[in-house]
Amino acid sequence: MASAGRAGVGTNQEDIRRHNLGTVLGHVHRSERLSRAELTARMGLNRSTIAGLVTELESLGLAEQAKPSGARIGAGRPSVDVKARSGAYVLAVDLRVDGLTVARVGLGGIIQSRATGPVPQGHDPHAITDSVLDLMRLVVKDVEPGSALVGVGVGVPGIIRAEDGLVRLAPNLSWRDVPFAQILGERLGSIGMPVLGNDADLGALAEHLRGAGVGVEDLVYLSGEVGVGAGVIVSGHKLEGAGGYAGEIGHMPFLPDGKLCHCGAHGCWETEIGAEAIALAIGCPAERVGALGEFLEGVHEASPDLRQVGRHLGRGIAGIVNMLNPRVIVLGGYLRSLSPLVQEDVDQEIAVHALTASHELVRVTLPGLGGDSVLHGAAELAFEPLLADPVGRLATACRDAEAALAV
Amino acid sequence: MASAGRAGVGTNQEDIRRHNLGTVLGHVHRSERLSRAELTARMGLNRSTIAGLVTELESLGLAEQAKPSGARIGAGRPSVDVKARSGAYVLAVDLRVDGLTVARVGLGGIIQSRATGPVPQGHDPHAITDSVLDLMRLVVKDVEPGSALVGVGVGVPGIIRAEDGLVRLAPNLSWRDVPFAQILGERLGSIGMPVLGNDADLGALAEHLRGAGVGVEDLVYLSGEVGVGAGVIVSGHKLEGAGGYAGEIGHMPFLPDGKLCHCGAHGCWETEIGAEAIALAIGCPAERVGALGEFLEGVHEASPDLRQVGRHLGRGIAGIVNMLNPRVIVLGGYLRSLSPLVQEDVDQEIAVHALTASHELVRVTLPGLGGDSVLHGAAELAFEPLLADPVGRLATACRDAEAALAV
Ligand SMILES: [Zn+2]
Ligand SMILES: [Zn+2]
Repeated sequence: MASAGRAGVGTNQEDIRRHNLGTVLGHVHRSERLSRAELTARMGLNRSTIAGLVTELESLGLAEQAKPSGARIGAGRPSVDVKARSGAYVLAVDLRVDGLTVARVGLGGIIQSRATGPVPQGHDPHAITDSVLDLMRLVVKDVEPGSALVGVGVGVPGIIRAEDGLVRLAPNLSWRDVPFAQILGERLGSIGMPVLGNDADLGALAEHLRGAGVGVEDLVYLSGEVGVGAGVIVSGHKLEGAGGYAGEIGHMPFLPDGKLCHCGAHGCWETEIGAEAIALAIGCPAERVGALGEFLEGVHEASPDLRQVGRHLGRGIAGIVNMLNPRVIVLGGYLRSLSPLVQEDVDQEIAVHALTASHELVRVTLPGLGGDSVLHGAAELAFEPLLADPVGRLATACRDAEAALAV
Repeated sequence: MASAGRAGVGTNQEDIRRHNLGTVLGHVHRSERLSRAELTARMGLNRSTIAGLVTELESLGLAEQAKPSGARIGAGRPSVDVKARSGAYVLAVDLRVDGLTVARVGLGGIIQSRATGPVPQGHDPHAITDSVLDLMRLVVKDVEPGSALVGVGVGVPGIIRAEDGLVRLAPNLSWRDVPFAQILGERLGSIGMPVLGNDADLGALAEHLRGAGVGVEDLVYLSGEVGVGAGVIVSGHKLEGAGGYAGEIGHMPFLPDGKLCHCGAHGCWETEIGAEAIALAIGCPAERVGALGEFLEGVHEASPDLRQVGRHLGRGIAGIVNMLNPRVIVLGGYLRSLSPLVQEDVDQEIAVHALTASHELVRVTLPGLGGDSVLHGAAELAFEPLLADPVGRLATACRDAEAALAV
């Protein structure tokens, strides 16, 4: 006890400064442009402290100050605008069952470069890692020299053990207890270990920070891919559950004698509304599910089979409304293309099955970030250490990603 | 801003003292017996401050100090034990579709007196209020003279608007937007307004504080009455949702062409596992559902129909496991009597439908508080103002409930 107390006294001032620096950077990162006066108000610190912190971020290459904007705040001098600079970036990976996207994302959530490729058949984690590295090499070309790679975030359609990035289960990749963070991390070498997150959780995070759920405390993001998952935010915090595995709504028992699910059970919701069910309903061949997005773009009127998928979607959403009473439900993945085609069926089923008190509070909407919610969420995950301690994270960041990835 | 600041300075010391007094009382209320040394450690205040607060609680009639217990803590003098005194009590009401229980509950969660009666047919809220008052008159007899009635808490099988106790929907009472808090409050007169809570939420609260979920951060309490609801605690906090209506798991769409539910939809989970479904499966006549508990006690082997109810129960629980990843699921209400009869069917369906990672973390259990979880939860709700500010609440408390209720 006594020694912990002494250590606390010794580092207190420095800890507070590092923490404040990260908090300022977080505000700058999440706003397109922010005045120093706004920063001062949000953080409850005095003007000179804020000015000092901003100057430090500038010298670290993380922020820049721009000439005063037109609007004056209060009676004083016009404030200086602060915005993020791309002195630091992350690599974000969106691993789907049917495709792979890697992006270089700068502070402020700017996608600087992106590349997309197929997922190797058989879903071997080592083969997937090869593809991820190939795509990474593409997106780190032309990075501003000296710019710091401060993290790698990966969205995975499965349930992840947070402490070590073990993929406990990704049914649609046929993964059970695959140490994907470790496998990928070994190849990343000096770049450091990646952080893995469940795809739907990352979609929820990104939509909450930058998309359709800004300012919304109770939000559900539905990732409609080959599998269906939910990222849930309640009272502003991620719904974790005992092991961090909450939100596996795709495996809600839905039809008593339904189709066999990749999880081994019959009748899970995702067997009725996932990519394979949509493909079947629109005549997209099973082996071409990877191109389902293109097939859906060619559909202009819903067939009876597709409308049935819409009704299943609406009925399941009603269950979410009754269970979680969210303010916003964001339809991600293929549900983005599906839902406009079957809007009426979805709405009708929600109206029938949702309780009025909860129904009248909810808005069902498309993602504010288009198809990039998960990618943005993976980037946010990767930025977290930088925002917690900018100086500490930069000290060990990789300054030449191209060389590091060439190994 | 400036005047708020001044007011803050003026009341700061007094605020802190009141807050600390309530916190001490909360610790004493939730522990059967507690030493002053333990209190000192938990609150991080010095010995003399704690001694002063305990003495103040003693003088208010809320706590008493007992001679030192045998065990010594550390090397100092043996500490003094502190326990709750019944100088304050609440009235707790458990309103079910098929029965009504009222209890007088003392500090420390001691049920001092209880009375049970039928719910008037037709569920007219004014008639129910008459019955509640009758039962209250019974339980306040023989209250220690001068003891303070500090609150009335009511568990209702419906969704409640927190700010005014409006019952938005209680499908099985056929209530829509019934201002039950106001109706009951008008009759309680000088006792003051009651606080209403959803029955399952109160069950979860009580099991978390005193029952099978002590120390558990992620817990689901299933109230299996005529309706089925869930009280959900995630990361130690109640899952509220946008309007406080979360947890309506009984109305999860469960069978696509299932029975008509009292909510107006077809195939809700509660139509398959609620009291009426259990009654049907064991041959209890529909008009005798109120005596379902007695009927269930007479069942020693599960019929195929009852085993089917068990399978539906297990399948729905698996959905909860996948969705919320809880550590503990408490089976309340009739599920307490049902589940031992169909244990094997329940467990088997959970095993089939729950994802392994979440399944291996969950324990499905009976309530630690027997059939009194909701009643205890209603009492906890009623005690909240006292624990927030003991002096303030006592100042306006009713000291002669018998007279107040005689009006
Ligand atoms: Zn499944
Ligand atoms: Zn219903």
